Amino acid sequence: MKIIDIIEKKKKGEALTDTEIKFFIDGVMKGSIEDYQTSALLMAIYFRGMNLEETTLLTKYMVESGEILDLSDISDNIIDKHSTGGVGDKITLMFLPIMAAAGMYTAKLSGRGLGHTGGTIDKLEAIPNFRTDLSIEEFKEKVKTHKTAIAAQTLSLAPADGKLYALRDVTSTVDIIPLIASSVVSKKIASGANHIVLDVKYGSGAFLKTPEDAQKLSEIMVEVGKRLNRNICAVISSMNQPLGRAVGNSVEIQEVIEFLKGNMEPDLKEITFTLAKKALEKANRHEDFDYFEKLIKSGSALEKFKEIVASQNGDVRIFDDYSILPQAGIKYEVKTDVSGFVKNIDALKIAKACKNLGAGREKKSDPIDYSAGIYLNKKYAEYVNKGDTIATVYTNKEGALEEAKALIESAFEYTDKKPEEQSLIYKIIN
Amino acid sequence: MKIIDIIEKKKKGEALTDTEIKFFIDGVMKGSIEDYQTSALLMAIYFRGMNLEETTLLTKYMVESGEILDLSDISDNIIDKHSTGGVGDKITLMFLPIMAAAGMYTAKLSGRGLGHTGGTIDKLEAIPNFRTDLSIEEFKEKVKTHKTAIAAQTLSLAPADGKLYALRDVTSTVDIIPLIASSVVSKKIASGANHIVLDVKYGSGAFLKTPEDAQKLSEIMVEVGKRLNRNICAVISSMNQPLGRAVGNSVEIQEVIEFLKGNMEPDLKEITFTLAKKALEKANRHEDFDYFEKLIKSGSALEKFKEIVASQNGDVRIFDDYSILPQAGIKYEVKTDVSGFVKNIDALKIAKACKNLGAGREKKSDPIDYSAGIYLNKKYAEYVNKGDTIATVYTNKEGALEEAKALIESAFEYTDKKPEEQSLIYKIIN
Repeated sequence: MKIIDIIEKKKKGEALTDTEIKFFIDGVMKGSIEDYQTSALLMAIYFRGMNLEETTLLTKYMVESGEILDLSDISDNIIDKHSTGGVGDKITLMFLPIMAAAGMYTAKLSGRGLGHTGGTIDKLEAIPNFRTDLSIEEFKEKVKTHKTAIAAQTLSLAPADGKLYALRDVTSTVDIIPLIASSVVSKKIASGANHIVLDVKYGSGAFLKTPEDAQKLSEIMVEVGKRLNRNICAVISSMNQPLGRAVGNSVEIQEVIEFLKGNMEPDLKEITFTLAKKALEKANRHEDFDYFEKLIKSGSALEKFKEIVASQNGDVRIFDDYSILPQAGIKYEVKTDVSGFVKNIDALKIAKACKNLGAGREKKSDPIDYSAGIYLNKKYAEYVNKGDTIATVYTNKEGALEEAKALIESAFEYTDKKPEEQSLIYKIIN
Repeated sequence: MKIIDIIEKKKKGEALTDTEIKFFIDGVMKGSIEDYQTSALLMAIYFRGMNLEETTLLTKYMVESGEILDLSDISDNIIDKHSTGGVGDKITLMFLPIMAAAGMYTAKLSGRGLGHTGGTIDKLEAIPNFRTDLSIEEFKEKVKTHKTAIAAQTLSLAPADGKLYALRDVTSTVDIIPLIASSVVSKKIASGANHIVLDVKYGSGAFLKTPEDAQKLSEIMVEVGKRLNRNICAVISSMNQPLGRAVGNSVEIQEVIEFLKGNMEPDLKEITFTLAKKALEKANRHEDFDYFEKLIKSGSALEKFKEIVASQNGDVRIFDDYSILPQAGIKYEVKTDVSGFVKNIDALKIAKACKNLGAGREKKSDPIDYSAGIYLNKKYAEYVNKGDTIATVYTNKEGALEEAKALIESAFEYTDKKPEEQSLIYKIIN
């Protein structure tokens, strides 16, 4: 078998066989296939696609390219969640305590965020002394004891995906739906959970811009997951506006704690509860939103989050004193010079502003300023009077203020008529 | 400027600008663009194409990536010819003496053949002591003195094309018409001629299978050549059946000499005279076939070929004694067991048989057996009686005989009714 014949076949629009896909992934891992051949194949896949069978096989061989976390000694009922990424996306940090409070096991391995704002691991690291570098033994031990744990992914899960991704990133072949699907699903399968809920976002602040693309990706991921024997579903929601009011790291941790204390932003509640409901369904439990509301009101979800923070060495004083979280030197209020109802807040512009302020990174090695971020004083459908503060900026980079202010101002759109309430959920793919 | 943005642009189907194409070729030459990025771009070009303006710019910057042969001290009226390659394609060896006999300058730098049979340089090297490794000074001196010379390309002409081709060869991106066009035209322009005739072939024995593709390629090459200030035209002809009767190296030299002695196979005559006629037209001379026929009958073309062979140190005794050319140890006659008119001789099958017999190479470093080859005793439209010899096989590899015989037998197709005479020329693009 020769890789050039496989490239040629895909170039002509034919489906690759089991043997051919295995040969490709093996060759990528062994280095017997050159990067320039892999990138030619990836580009051919951009134009010709991969069918479900090919995508499933690709996912399977990517899983088999590395270690597979075995959690079967903990339970056969372990939940994992994955978000395709958004602006102000702190859902995992509310989802895990709620699952634990509901008596379910979750085991969450997470990558570091690239792009505009930090990832979940970065947000947690805003908590002084919080340890995300758990060994596999520690991680499993904590899941056993506390029902949940969250650690930075250090294991070599689906390493073929890592190799392919590194190449896709520099050859303009990231936006290929079957490759995105197999990348996400292979990592989730290698992480060892039985039940997987996918939080798939579309819109200005997501990498998929349209609900149709998000649906296409979701359908493929769910079908591939099923074919590889996982209980899996996808919740598709809009990421045109930031989730919640806080975007950054410290500020998001604060918003999570407030949420768990019962001060729930409606958009965060809708997404978190929907994912929680679907996750329980996958494990054959059927609960409504009231149930999750009670887990919050009773304080048991908050207690679980405290337990996680304590178990991972974090400073639990943050729950009563937010000033223990990293604080920015500069706090600046952005005021509006118009009046009206907020019609839209462009998530991408808010994200870009956040990155400029220091909250994000370009390379994995870049440092993050945990204290940097934006708090949206005004959200969708709220009325704003001329001179009101629409957002508060936190940063240590004075030079970044001007541009952030301009981005925030241009992110806000207004209207005279109060916009209707709207659900963020577009569709659920079971 | 970043290469990833250029890849993305082409991926989306947009045309690249002058600056972008220059940046790409410069990066390929300097090594600042990685091979895996180049191959991704090449594959995107396969799917999205390049317009005439892009193809012209690509050609221009490939020419400028290396040396350009300056022949202006010899004449402003220098002809070059290029064939896209075929089976039994010895046309150059008749074309050059005819041009010289007609008083025109030709300067022919040629590559070595890859694939089924040798290239023009290989065929010439079948002549004992024939030197193709001329220095540029020797080459130019010989063109000045004898009106023509032919040398192996040692100069670094359009080296960017060489780099791209090496990558295309291993990433299934050879069959991209704008890249083929810029590859051919850039080398011809860098070779220094003013007038260029292209011999473009389609069919079983050519890399382009349909006349439509050959026409598309020809139109692009001619237009690009014109935009880069060359007098250029393309003659498109069928390569479904081998050209002439001899396929190999020694056997083809013999056929060339016979042609120049006046024993002209009609297909060789049609192609050679058409190219010669077009070449003179480019230089503002208008001659008909009778003119070229006279150059043959008078012996002046043969004399010119002798002059070339002598000037390049070749053994001129071959003109009177073919046994001085490399002789194969085995000579085998393939007989037919049917009767009928020859309807077709599949060029690709004959080429494959030839390669197996030792006449071709896979890698540039592979040796060639100059004595190996096939002589077609029967050609298109000729009548064959059961038991007649249809082809004669020359080889030193006894083990290759069986397969060669089978390939030759299956290459021949017969019919009861005498097939009509047909012109090989499909179209001429001026």
